[in-house]
Amino acid sequence: MNSAADLERFLHEQIPLTVAMGVQVAECDDTRLVLTAPLAPNRNHLQTAFGGSLHALATLSGYSLLWWLLREPHAHIVIRESTIRYKNPVRGDLRAVCHSPAAQELERFRRDFARKGKARISLDAVVEYDDEIAVRFSGVFVAINS
Amino acid sequence: MNSAADLERFLHEQIPLTVAMGVQVAECDDTRLVLTAPLAPNRNHLQTAFGGSLHALATLSGYSLLWWLLREPHAHIVIRESTIRYKNPVRGDLRAVCHSPAAQELERFRRDFARKGKARISLDAVVEYDDEIAVRFSGVFVAINS
Repeated sequence: MNSAADLERFLHEQIPLTVAMGVQVAECDDTRLVLTAPLAPNRNHLQTAFGGSLHALATLSGYSLLWWLLREPHAHIVIRESTIRYKNPVRGDLRAVCHSPAAQELERFRRDFARKGKARISLDAVVEYDDEIAVRFSGVFVAINS
Repeated sequence: MNSAADLERFLHEQIPLTVAMGVQVAECDDTRLVLTAPLAPNRNHLQTAFGGSLHALATLSGYSLLWWLLREPHAHIVIRESTIRYKNPVRGDLRAVCHSPAAQELERFRRDFARKGKARISLDAVVEYDDEIAVRFSGVFVAINS
């Protein structure tokens, strides 16, 4: 995958719920990955973003960042566990931001993957709304050489 | 809401992602609530259930159980935080089970809601697959008198 468009196509083809959610890759580089989704298909009974959609978008931002950083076609990336805190309601479009881990941590992850065929890493993501952090997400992801 | 069919209609009308996911209310009584969803719209790149869909279904099972137990049309129920552990992949249809809290805990929740117009409760849910627990979910939900 060499571009945000490639990554978006991959998500839409491989995870159909991303099409229903209207997920788009807004930014994608080695420092961070940003996914967006419109409110309408992700709303709840209170006309704010559904907690499940917020969690899914944050999870996808972590998945996607790892795919992007690892650049390893034989890696299967899965999520092992996550914690999410909903601080404020999101009353408009959803925007999840996952920042790259520290260089040293990423280096360890790549080295473990190369040596053992398996590596684990924690990633944090936030959902921003109205210039504030509305949601905090932390996930543990595992990459396995297939 | 007086039946599983009422609850399912409510979910589909108020949270459009439940339609995309194919969520159905399989069981609904005062002891537990069971939601199901087919694998196809909820699959990931490994042909197993997407972590975001598993979390969304577990969250919905908690939401729905509270709506059912509270039977209070003026309650707004929201989720504050959750933790999820993905133990085993789900290779077929999704099935989330949320059990009612202990009678004493439910009584406290109802009393807080009646007295203060606000109440908080923790609920656990699991996703079962192939007669085993594939996913463990724990969420903190808040009901607010609107």
